[in-house]
Amino acid sequence: MSSTYQSFTPPRRVLMGPGPSDVPERILQAMARPTIGHLDPAFIGLMDEIKELLRYAFRTENRLTMPVSGPGTVGMETCVVNLVEPGDTVLVGINGVFGGRLREMVLRAGGKVVEVRAPWGRALDVEDVRRTLDEHPDVKVVAFVHAETSTGARTDAEAIARVAREHGCLTLVDAVTSLGGSPVLTDAWGLDMVYSGSQKCLSCTPGLSPITVSERAVERIRHRIRPVQSWFMDLNLVMAYWEGEGMQRAYHHTAPINPLYGLHEALLMLYEEGLEQAWERHKRMHLGLTAGLEALGLSFFVPEEERLWQLNAIVVPEGVDEKKVRMQLLEEYQLEIGAGLGDMAGTIWRIGLMGYSARVENVYHCVEALGKTLQAQGWKASVQEALEAVEVELASFTS
Amino acid sequence: MSSTYQSFTPPRRVLMGPGPSDVPERILQAMARPTIGHLDPAFIGLMDEIKELLRYAFRTENRLTMPVSGPGTVGMETCVVNLVEPGDTVLVGINGVFGGRLREMVLRAGGKVVEVRAPWGRALDVEDVRRTLDEHPDVKVVAFVHAETSTGARTDAEAIARVAREHGCLTLVDAVTSLGGSPVLTDAWGLDMVYSGSQKCLSCTPGLSPITVSERAVERIRHRIRPVQSWFMDLNLVMAYWEGEGMQRAYHHTAPINPLYGLHEALLMLYEEGLEQAWERHKRMHLGLTAGLEALGLSFFVPEEERLWQLNAIVVPEGVDEKKVRMQLLEEYQLEIGAGLGDMAGTIWRIGLMGYSARVENVYHCVEALGKTLQAQGWKASVQEALEAVEVELASFTS
Repeated sequence: MSSTYQSFTPPRRVLMGPGPSDVPERILQAMARPTIGHLDPAFIGLMDEIKELLRYAFRTENRLTMPVSGPGTVGMETCVVNLVEPGDTVLVGINGVFGGRLREMVLRAGGKVVEVRAPWGRALDVEDVRRTLDEHPDVKVVAFVHAETSTGARTDAEAIARVAREHGCLTLVDAVTSLGGSPVLTDAWGLDMVYSGSQKCLSCTPGLSPITVSERAVERIRHRIRPVQSWFMDLNLVMAYWEGEGMQRAYHHTAPINPLYGLHEALLMLYEEGLEQAWERHKRMHLGLTAGLEALGLSFFVPEEERLWQLNAIVVPEGVDEKKVRMQLLEEYQLEIGAGLGDMAGTIWRIGLMGYSARVENVYHCVEALGKTLQAQGWKASVQEALEAVEVELASFTS
Repeated sequence: MSSTYQSFTPPRRVLMGPGPSDVPERILQAMARPTIGHLDPAFIGLMDEIKELLRYAFRTENRLTMPVSGPGTVGMETCVVNLVEPGDTVLVGINGVFGGRLREMVLRAGGKVVEVRAPWGRALDVEDVRRTLDEHPDVKVVAFVHAETSTGARTDAEAIARVAREHGCLTLVDAVTSLGGSPVLTDAWGLDMVYSGSQKCLSCTPGLSPITVSERAVERIRHRIRPVQSWFMDLNLVMAYWEGEGMQRAYHHTAPINPLYGLHEALLMLYEEGLEQAWERHKRMHLGLTAGLEALGLSFFVPEEERLWQLNAIVVPEGVDEKKVRMQLLEEYQLEIGAGLGDMAGTIWRIGLMGYSARVENVYHCVEALGKTLQAQGWKASVQEALEAVEVELASFTS
């Protein structure tokens, strides 16, 4: 044990990895406000506003819309253990790490898994899903990842949800990386359970997982035969706290007060900007970054029409020491970008443009820092030309 | 949906309920520092310090000592689902709400429960535990609550752990309300899995649950026959992130960065004060509060020798509208005290003296506010005399 400890002073980073993203000072300051009790009338009012603002972000009227008190992984597991009963057959789409994690959770909840796979870096194929559902009429739930954080691929959630509905299945959708950064139209697309995370395109600190649940799914959860295996995640119990009226709310667990201050502020900022405007900003920054990285001679891992704006997977050029590049970016430019995860370790970088990180200065900083770092490893490209390419691309929007 | 939303400005409360407790400005400010990534080398250093400081707080050398990314309830469930396999018999001590919750979690994990009950407001009886273990040689785990937050009763964890060990059982101990406020000697008492919460005597914001696990328990978890039912709570996976060496740590979930800044600061403050000094402070404040409340003519729910210093359950006097009293304390004195929970609803108040809330000004504030509020309901007592009783009691320590 050290003989002396000191307060922790974190370095100031530019966060362009797969999350957390940069947290605006406004949100950090909100988190530092005085703590109050989780049953305080003033806190109950905050909870109500958070629910309303989350409905705005999720584009839904779902009554059961709230933040789960844990990271996105808890949101994922909450959806799985509530919607899936032992013995239920679940179609799981797997095209990256998080689809694989869904599969694992369904199995641990006692479900049977029917897999639909797509190559890493590609979207799930809607016709594959249709064919598989035709072959497996016992499937009750279709679970998949809308925005695969491990690869940057965007799956057509609307089309898959339509096919699922045609087969009488409910949908369970990972929108951890999409919510707030690109369209997630819960009601228009007919999604049944959607979970997300606070630290991606909402730019809040990690640790909270917004979820929304359709009436169909609520009904199924209310009429489960067996209790949910997790007491903490049992929505039948959680609802009594988040859905109770006024002071009649039942204590379930102590809500993470200050992080919820932060989430409220983050949602308020999204509301002030406007959801469509936020999507548009993510798209513009993505196109600006794309222009710069392509001018540097780098290539994307995901085909253009399946790319997420907010998570850009770049192929590590041959002969480049990918880890050394990331370390150098961190040390010399205070820039964090993500490594490849799982099967993609060592072969791609993941550059996030999420929430507050999706801004003009970050795009330039990333192109310049990455360009110079690659040059130092012998990569032939003009950083100046790349920055000009960014400028041209971004100017095409402002004109 | 409201047409206008504003940043949330919480009222300034004095938090003397069952948690959260008052959070010092130092800790709030720590939480507002810039967010960095969960795999950033600087963050890895912070994680190491948090583990060391938690070992200090838990009085343990256990390697596996870390904060779980969720409220105390997640700590509880993490311990249960890792230590208990389907079919295992678990002795559960039940003398309040949280013992009952342990029972429910063991059942949902597929365990069989043998109950040892004590009346609410009383400690568990060690001889009852011994007798029950003699009668049930199949019990593998003894689970109980050290500090029952619903009643303010303290059970003799050392004695129960000894009996459990004599019967070849591991212990699973709820120290949510005790850690940092009164002795929790993990190694000296031979406890195997202990969980706590950040928002009680550590005075951090709610949302993190420190746990510590003995080598015996780690071995059992490593050699489970079936995987842990929860993917998120599976310590075999969590360990790879919190226990990995340096940059080799495996990603499991995104840690709640800023709340962990807060926990680090809270543990640092405990370390600076000294653990024994913190216990002593909680004891003194408890005796001061006791003198004041007894001078007001109020009585305690728990017998003196079984009382927790940090959670004081007071019997609501006959004829007093307990809810009105709490509402008035909140509105007129900004003072939060707790209602009774479960079977105790309406019959007791729970007054917390936890962490930063356990200080002289709070003791006076509480005695004065509660005295005046009761007087307004026709209660006959002298607030002045009660405050003098506090003064005499507190002076006996400083002399």
